[in-house]
Amino acid sequence: MLKVSMIVIGDEILNGRTSDLNGGWLAQYLFKMGMEFKALRFIHDDADEINKALIVSLEESDIVITSGGIGPTVDDKTKKSLADYFQKNIIERPDVALIVTENYKRFGRPWAPEQNHYHFFPEDFIATNNPLGLAPGIVYFEAKNQKLVMSAPGVPREFHEMVTSEFLPLIKQFFQNRFQENFQTVIRTKGISEEKIFFELCPTLWSELEIFGKVSSLPHTIGIDIVIGYNGNLNEHLIKLEKIHQLIKSSALAVHVWQYGNRAINEMVLNYALENQKTFSFAESCTGGLVASKMTDLSGSSAVFKGGVVTYSNDAKVELLGVDSKTLEKFGAVSIEVAQEMARGALSKFNTDFAVSLTGIAGPTGGSELKPTGTVVIGFASKHSSGARVYLFPGDRIRRKERFSDMALLQLLDLMMSEIK
Amino acid sequence: MLKVSMIVIGDEILNGRTSDLNGGWLAQYLFKMGMEFKALRFIHDDADEINKALIVSLEESDIVITSGGIGPTVDDKTKKSLADYFQKNIIERPDVALIVTENYKRFGRPWAPEQNHYHFFPEDFIATNNPLGLAPGIVYFEAKNQKLVMSAPGVPREFHEMVTSEFLPLIKQFFQNRFQENFQTVIRTKGISEEKIFFELCPTLWSELEIFGKVSSLPHTIGIDIVIGYNGNLNEHLIKLEKIHQLIKSSALAVHVWQYGNRAINEMVLNYALENQKTFSFAESCTGGLVASKMTDLSGSSAVFKGGVVTYSNDAKVELLGVDSKTLEKFGAVSIEVAQEMARGALSKFNTDFAVSLTGIAGPTGGSELKPTGTVVIGFASKHSSGARVYLFPGDRIRRKERFSDMALLQLLDLMMSEIK
Repeated sequence: MLKVSMIVIGDEILNGRTSDLNGGWLAQYLFKMGMEFKALRFIHDDADEINKALIVSLEESDIVITSGGIGPTVDDKTKKSLADYFQKNIIERPDVALIVTENYKRFGRPWAPEQNHYHFFPEDFIATNNPLGLAPGIVYFEAKNQKLVMSAPGVPREFHEMVTSEFLPLIKQFFQNRFQENFQTVIRTKGISEEKIFFELCPTLWSELEIFGKVSSLPHTIGIDIVIGYNGNLNEHLIKLEKIHQLIKSSALAVHVWQYGNRAINEMVLNYALENQKTFSFAESCTGGLVASKMTDLSGSSAVFKGGVVTYSNDAKVELLGVDSKTLEKFGAVSIEVAQEMARGALSKFNTDFAVSLTGIAGPTGGSELKPTGTVVIGFASKHSSGARVYLFPGDRIRRKERFSDMALLQLLDLMMSEIK
Repeated sequence: MLKVSMIVIGDEILNGRTSDLNGGWLAQYLFKMGMEFKALRFIHDDADEINKALIVSLEESDIVITSGGIGPTVDDKTKKSLADYFQKNIIERPDVALIVTENYKRFGRPWAPEQNHYHFFPEDFIATNNPLGLAPGIVYFEAKNQKLVMSAPGVPREFHEMVTSEFLPLIKQFFQNRFQENFQTVIRTKGISEEKIFFELCPTLWSELEIFGKVSSLPHTIGIDIVIGYNGNLNEHLIKLEKIHQLIKSSALAVHVWQYGNRAINEMVLNYALENQKTFSFAESCTGGLVASKMTDLSGSSAVFKGGVVTYSNDAKVELLGVDSKTLEKFGAVSIEVAQEMARGALSKFNTDFAVSLTGIAGPTGGSELKPTGTVVIGFASKHSSGARVYLFPGDRIRRKERFSDMALLQLLDLMMSEIK
């Protein structure tokens, strides 16, 4: 397996200003591509530190990917440090000037050599396109030791795109025949804790699954995901997948499984609605628009998602959704009755086939003994039915909003599946 | 400066299943606490790998923090590996049993020694509470070499809480007098690129700022942030802050600054509205509820944020916001006229002091030559005025939603500040 180390260059990570680590993304990507993520180092934009990190990283890995420090400002020292490390001179390179010109052209801007020093580049190094930015990627393959060093910008979208479209082809080129595919079988459960699954309900499940590969159990918004990972070819994967599904389906865990697979709940909702040409809408209170936002993260959602209402106040629930003010008075905003009326209101206002509503207490304040913080009522409505269910979720405000939202989407999917046969 | 290395133990990170790295959070936290984040290593839940990572980490750092592998399942090998590394026996410890009992009690659940092996613990090690979970934290201070090793769960919220409330006091206890505070002065700009700032508008600014400390420039949703970091005491910080602000305010960059500080835009909106007791609402199209969701991420927002409408379809714009269907026909959904009517609609439906609307093209499809993908019209309305502004943002769909949303919140803040005097 090809080993990869990453060096994150720049103060913005070390001083905690940037929390969206490219490392998290790279970990996912490398796994999919059958490579092993060995280590991630954070260093300052300092020649000496870059040099030290390169020594360690090149010792432990075949490939070193760096992010950051390749822009035009004075604190960007990656290029010079790499050149020094491999004892190459930085020279004016007309071929790199062409790449830079192309990068600028994509933004509709001209580039001239006086603007900056992008075209001063180490001899024998490879410059790559930057599909979403200006600075070219910096690549060097040391044939003698079979080591590949690649530097991309630190801006996440530029980094992701450069690794995907520019670096991967080069990795394949320099390390032919060293790839092997990774596969995962994922089982997603709800309403049961990790401990309950493996100690009470199915005490032998873990070891039975280990026959197929490496087992992990991971808490996610809706519940615990069980992941079995292994290498092999596609045919072997499909056989294992089938056997694992059989094993789970015949176990006591089966009733807690909401998905034999690894798709995000918003994608499942969108695909199912598109396939069946059904529309839906939301009425949100405690999630404050997050359910709608999750759906609209997906391109194409406008064909089935007609809209939503965020009614934080009681007045808005009455005015925009037609909730009866008597219902609010009698049962309170967080109640099965109000949730149901909210869903019916959204259904009729947006004239959709289905509607889901949420009313709850995300916290940290607002809870009571009867309705503690973390309580959420998820209502649903269609032309044929309406109803609501009550859940209680742990977590802080942000995490609860996530869990409430994903559970509402799961309820929408369940509703659609039960009515469309 | 105390040096800290982190080891992330477990397949879920290496195989890319979990993208929310605790490392990103720890980087921020350590900076605030005046410690240096040296390296982050990813390893499998494997005794040999844990051992190797410990050797390297303890060599380069004073403190090693690990995450993951301390749960009750079979793949959790951290405790045993740490015990072996420091040549300590794992014994049954009644004191740890008490901590575990407490952890369970917080979840309203009983614990008995038969349930799991949490109370088998290395001699001389310290067990900590787990305020948000069940597994106790594992800590060992090797006095001879002045090295501290601390293991927390991998679940982000448990990890964050354990580091904050349990580990930090122990770090302070074992490494007294080795702290020094870090400070930052942050200047947030909009509507101008990094290159334009430092190469065209203010070519000497970077070096002028470097007199105060380490300078970084960071792209964020609204624009470029300039950060100057330095050590010192609070008084020295306040003097530097004042001088840096003076410098920027007298520079050509001043007109592009939207904040002398480092607060999130949703917090600024909330605080300003709370201070002035003003309410607001949103009418969203392309951002699909993200603006409302950003506001409701903040506890206390319900006092001023009355609600929002997500109108993806034209019908919904007419039905829920009272947009004139003739306006839609004549100018199209993405237009100054429709944005303005949407804002006025939200203002009247939610009966708020201010309303902001968005209509645009998040992409990747839907753009035209006249209204390219990335176009957004942000409308605003109050009792005294209404209007709209057009922006064009780069990025992919998700990033555009973020930028559109933050810009809408900035526009709301501007609107409130211009009308409340």
